[in-house]
Amino acid sequence: MRPSKRALDEMRPVSFERNVARYAEGSCLVKFGATHVLCTASLEDKPPQWLRGQGRGWVTAEYAMLPRATHTRSRREVTSGKPSGRTQEIQRLIGRSLRAVTNLPAMGERQIVVDCDVLQADGGTRTAAITGGWIALRDCFEWMRARSIVKDSPLRDHVAAVSCGMFEGKPVLDLDYAEDSIAETDANFVITGSGGLVEVQATAEGSVFTTDELARLLALAQKGVDELLALQKSALA
Amino acid sequence: MRPSKRALDEMRPVSFERNVARYAEGSCLVKFGATHVLCTASLEDKPPQWLRGQGRGWVTAEYAMLPRATHTRSRREVTSGKPSGRTQEIQRLIGRSLRAVTNLPAMGERQIVVDCDVLQADGGTRTAAITGGWIALRDCFEWMRARSIVKDSPLRDHVAAVSCGMFEGKPVLDLDYAEDSIAETDANFVITGSGGLVEVQATAEGSVFTTDELARLLALAQKGVDELLALQKSALA
Amino acid sequence: MRPSKRALDEMRPVSFERNVARYAEGSCLVKFGATHVLCTASLEDKPPQWLRGQGRGWVTAEYAMLPRATHTRSRREVTSGKPSGRTQEIQRLIGRSLRAVTNLPAMGERQIVVDCDVLQADGGTRTAAITGGWIALRDCFEWMRARSIVKDSPLRDHVAAVSCGMFEGKPVLDLDYAEDSIAETDANFVITGSGGLVEVQATAEGSVFTTDELARLLALAQKGVDELLALQKSALA
Amino acid sequence: MRPSKRALDEMRPVSFERNVARYAEGSCLVKFGATHVLCTASLEDKPPQWLRGQGRGWVTAEYAMLPRATHTRSRREVTSGKPSGRTQEIQRLIGRSLRAVTNLPAMGERQIVVDCDVLQADGGTRTAAITGGWIALRDCFEWMRARSIVKDSPLRDHVAAVSCGMFEGKPVLDLDYAEDSIAETDANFVITGSGGLVEVQATAEGSVFTTDELARLLALAQKGVDELLALQKSALA
Amino acid sequence: MRPSKRALDEMRPVSFERNVARYAEGSCLVKFGATHVLCTASLEDKPPQWLRGQGRGWVTAEYAMLPRATHTRSRREVTSGKPSGRTQEIQRLIGRSLRAVTNLPAMGERQIVVDCDVLQADGGTRTAAITGGWIALRDCFEWMRARSIVKDSPLRDHVAAVSCGMFEGKPVLDLDYAEDSIAETDANFVITGSGGLVEVQATAEGSVFTTDELARLLALAQKGVDELLALQKSALA
Amino acid sequence: MRPSKRALDEMRPVSFERNVARYAEGSCLVKFGATHVLCTASLEDKPPQWLRGQGRGWVTAEYAMLPRATHTRSRREVTSGKPSGRTQEIQRLIGRSLRAVTNLPAMGERQIVVDCDVLQADGGTRTAAITGGWIALRDCFEWMRARSIVKDSPLRDHVAAVSCGMFEGKPVLDLDYAEDSIAETDANFVITGSGGLVEVQATAEGSVFTTDELARLLALAQKGVDELLALQKSALA
Repeated sequence: MRPSKRALDEMRPVSFERNVARYAEGSCLVKFGATHVLCTASLEDKPPQWLRGQGRGWVTAEYAMLPRATHTRSRREVTSGKPSGRTQEIQRLIGRSLRAVTNLPAMGERQIVVDCDVLQADGGTRTAAITGGWIALRDCFEWMRARSIVKDSPLRDHVAAVSCGMFEGKPVLDLDYAEDSIAETDANFVITGSGGLVEVQATAEGSVFTTDELARLLALAQKGVDELLALQKSALA
Repeated sequence: MRPSKRALDEMRPVSFERNVARYAEGSCLVKFGATHVLCTASLEDKPPQWLRGQGRGWVTAEYAMLPRATHTRSRREVTSGKPSGRTQEIQRLIGRSLRAVTNLPAMGERQIVVDCDVLQADGGTRTAAITGGWIALRDCFEWMRARSIVKDSPLRDHVAAVSCGMFEGKPVLDLDYAEDSIAETDANFVITGSGGLVEVQATAEGSVFTTDELARLLALAQKGVDELLALQKSALA
Repeated sequence: MRPSKRALDEMRPVSFERNVARYAEGSCLVKFGATHVLCTASLEDKPPQWLRGQGRGWVTAEYAMLPRATHTRSRREVTSGKPSGRTQEIQRLIGRSLRAVTNLPAMGERQIVVDCDVLQADGGTRTAAITGGWIALRDCFEWMRARSIVKDSPLRDHVAAVSCGMFEGKPVLDLDYAEDSIAETDANFVITGSGGLVEVQATAEGSVFTTDELARLLALAQKGVDELLALQKSALA
Repeated sequence: MRPSKRALDEMRPVSFERNVARYAEGSCLVKFGATHVLCTASLEDKPPQWLRGQGRGWVTAEYAMLPRATHTRSRREVTSGKPSGRTQEIQRLIGRSLRAVTNLPAMGERQIVVDCDVLQADGGTRTAAITGGWIALRDCFEWMRARSIVKDSPLRDHVAAVSCGMFEGKPVLDLDYAEDSIAETDANFVITGSGGLVEVQATAEGSVFTTDELARLLALAQKGVDELLALQKSALA
Repeated sequence: MRPSKRALDEMRPVSFERNVARYAEGSCLVKFGATHVLCTASLEDKPPQWLRGQGRGWVTAEYAMLPRATHTRSRREVTSGKPSGRTQEIQRLIGRSLRAVTNLPAMGERQIVVDCDVLQADGGTRTAAITGGWIALRDCFEWMRARSIVKDSPLRDHVAAVSCGMFEGKPVLDLDYAEDSIAETDANFVITGSGGLVEVQATAEGSVFTTDELARLLALAQKGVDELLALQKSALA
Repeated sequence: MRPSKRALDEMRPVSFERNVARYAEGSCLVKFGATHVLCTASLEDKPPQWLRGQGRGWVTAEYAMLPRATHTRSRREVTSGKPSGRTQEIQRLIGRSLRAVTNLPAMGERQIVVDCDVLQADGGTRTAAITGGWIALRDCFEWMRARSIVKDSPLRDHVAAVSCGMFEGKPVLDLDYAEDSIAETDANFVITGSGGLVEVQATAEGSVFTTDELARLLALAQKGVDELLALQKSALA
């Protein structure tokens, strides 16, 4: 029995609330259980400096947690003057995941910044951010299409992400904070609408894992992502 | 006629949603029209270093805006490595305002950090933060009382804040962003439940103001604060 | 009886020494009693980046204290890598005050930086800085006029500032450090030569203040500023 | 045919030179072809602050590249004042990998810092750093055992790492810089002496990958790691 | 003929004004011609962290220039977040020079910080700072002796400093800014009251110098320092 | 007898290994006994911003130590966010020394960055860096000449550096770390191939030194530099 009482292959309740930010070109408040992430997509009419003149656009992401998103208050990163290693790792992952399903040349020389701000954290913030960030990005592209900034949406596919872990020797889906703290292995999977793998990151915590366990975690993730993709589609309907 | 079509002495719709943050000892999502600020109060069992051993507690505040709280995206302050002058000015004001109604020795040697994170900004973020931050602080003190950490609440009074401005030669209440941009004078007032003044900050923008105008702005602010105090009381009922 | 033995409405001895900095376009060593601030105005032939191409100039201020300006040595701000919140608040106030009496378009696309460095601090450093900074700025504009960089001085009026406070229930003028430490309310007023208000900042320390008290502090400030304006005029004669 | 002319499953020449740093408790210059990393293990007699009093030790890693390790000179990270996201990601990975084979309580309350400084970079610096860092760590533990600081070596197993990638639709082993730049998928595998997986990080570059491809990359990595483990053993003989 | 019209071996007018800082334990405004440096000595009752428990004190120095001490305004170092290399070099030199004539164990476990703030810069700021800093330090030690904090002054000797340079092939004494800019060699000498050398720093600018030239510069410096020592003694009389 | 058992005027074994960095235009691993410094010269096709359009090039240097180059591990400077005063002092010295023998206009509008990274430190790292950095710079200029980027090498002369010190009242050559720690005076000399002095930096440690002692240290340095120049020439043969 997992701490959350969920079945081994059971996701938390997931919801997407679109258009929550009055000024952003696209936005989504995504909830994976008690994990809440506010995602906004902001269109900028110039790509980053290093990309100018190459006829392509760029999608990047930034990630942060409110100080009291967590059980105990965390210091704001501005206080130490720089984002932590963990923050940078996560925002790089979100950016890569969203770019994997974007036709960058079709964007023109523009940049979209997807901000993922964690209002409340109960495990799986990076997977929620990718999954909800995709909605914000998609709506931003629709906003651009409605204004004829692009002819067709530069988005090529859905993308969603979920975490899995080995818990008491069994693979479990969508770890919350309590489960994540005691899992032996922690893995994040980013998968497209057509089933292609974008990122696999599996880390032993405490004990190593086997090839077979990795395969079982991946199979479970595919089940979870299928559900997320269906929910993304409903949210857009 | 003001841009918002409100009467000169009309506040925007104001609401307080309590207990919005699962982990914080006190929390409140405050809305002044389209300005939305998430306030959390976090209890820490030690006062700041410089206050140790003096038998008193401390209340401090931090303030930040999400990057896309505004019409165009703002860079995160962590990127430049330090909070801006504006941010520091605001968080110092919030802290002073809340301490003005707190019995610091009655808190014991503890600290409460009130985080005010602006989810959406349409003018008046600092006044919303003070008014909603008071609710979060109050609920944190109740949380402490319920656990016998303090015997009585260290809170001595309500506190609320509102902005006023001279607009086309007339005093107007509770400026939104569009009004703030064109007001000739911009003033913020922080007032307690018993009508005492805690802070008055009036700034000429474009043209100077007179003693008489300051008095009229203050009278208007008192009307607005009376409404805010009544709404705070309803929210606690 | 106030600690300084001065009458309630008595300023400290105030003096202005012009042209104290060999290289600056305008400079003034201002003394409010034992508070000594060296103000220099430096002309730069470009406005700040964000103002380019708008046909206007800019006046900005920077403020700092020498480490041993104070009773005990303060750490240099460069050591912590950023100006404190207090420093930023003060330099923003000085800049706004000087811009309030400057015709920015008449300056052309230029910037004047007014540096206010506190050599010795005994309370009221920000008000001394505004009052003496105005002299430095005025002499910088004269320097420009003498070289036909501007046809007429872009300065529209005098500006001066003074602090007042409630001390043992009575309003007192021009607080020194000892008085400031024990005042119940601390207020700063910035007023132009024609009597217009530029800034009013009143803060409760320990106990709140009333509308009537604010009016009495303001009346006292007006008396003090009248004296400062007369002294500015003598210094220029 | 891969750019390096190597067979698809062929590693670059790998060598370990031990005791290259006169002062370090353990050190190793590891070469994976033209990628050269100097690894030193430094024993410190205190664990990090957050671990004090828990009866356990800690192994951490730091990673950096000399400015001209690369084709074109890179700016030193000290110039921008903080390690890049990439650097932090890599040093966190090295640290986790080495801790996965260390018995932390057996170390006592001490810390070992493994510094991995890239003298020359031709792809695969992180995998070389893990593989060579293990040698430095092992020799540090031997140094401690020789001085009776620990009774038995706290090292539980070997650990080694290698990168693989999909290149023109085929899985290839141990990518150099030229290959890495054009691979469709880039994956890093960290594997213990007994064949347990410690980390799997696979990233789509340009096109997504399949479950089957991931399995083939993993099989290839296991072949490569077997060779690395044999070379580690020879180096210690 | 040198630009300043002085004879080759002629110092600028030098003066010392003691007790210029109301709060400092020792202070001196030193002028070498148009170079003006305000030196304060601040007693702290603890030595720096790394020296605790060794029964010795410490003397350190900090150096800065006001933004408009120079012909064109310089950015404050706090703006870039760190002292420049030049600033650090100078403050390390001042500290070493003053420690060279101080009996550190006789100070007890205390620290004196000598702040040297350049109000106006016309070349030779570091040599003026050492020479005037010595006066401030001496008066601080007298302050301590008067209060029986130390029995005898921990100061063992005078110290003074002067710059020399090769100018059109001839050695000249005490370079001002205009001369320094065109000198072929620039040298600073720090010498004690008993004629011992503390620091010699000679740098070729444009063309190298010979052993003989170094000897001639040194002889000239000794003449200049003799005059400075006599002036220090007068100032103390 | 000096701790190293060397004769008073005996250098440590010195060697230069050229072309050690695969990608750099010039490189040299220089060893002064156990002090090992990796020097690379990197050609950049633009001069620094402040030199643009003046028809001249620039040579600059950066210096760093690997964390475990020393007896006990040093914190990386990136951790504190800025290079230390010592680092800045050294890299400014290396840059000045190399520029003293370079014809900057002959370089064209380009920059060469000489990176000096200390792999192992046993005293004299700055003198080794200058002496080895010269080799790297020379090979970079040859690389440019071979590609007709410059017609003739912009290098005008050799330059080399050595440290000397007073040890038990006697001048000794080329101090290692143990000797440096106990020397009474520590001096660094930078001298060109034709015998011109570029830099003389002599510092009293513990006791002052005399004019005569400085002359003897200088004579010894000239002997050491003669040997270094001969070794540079052999290395290029």
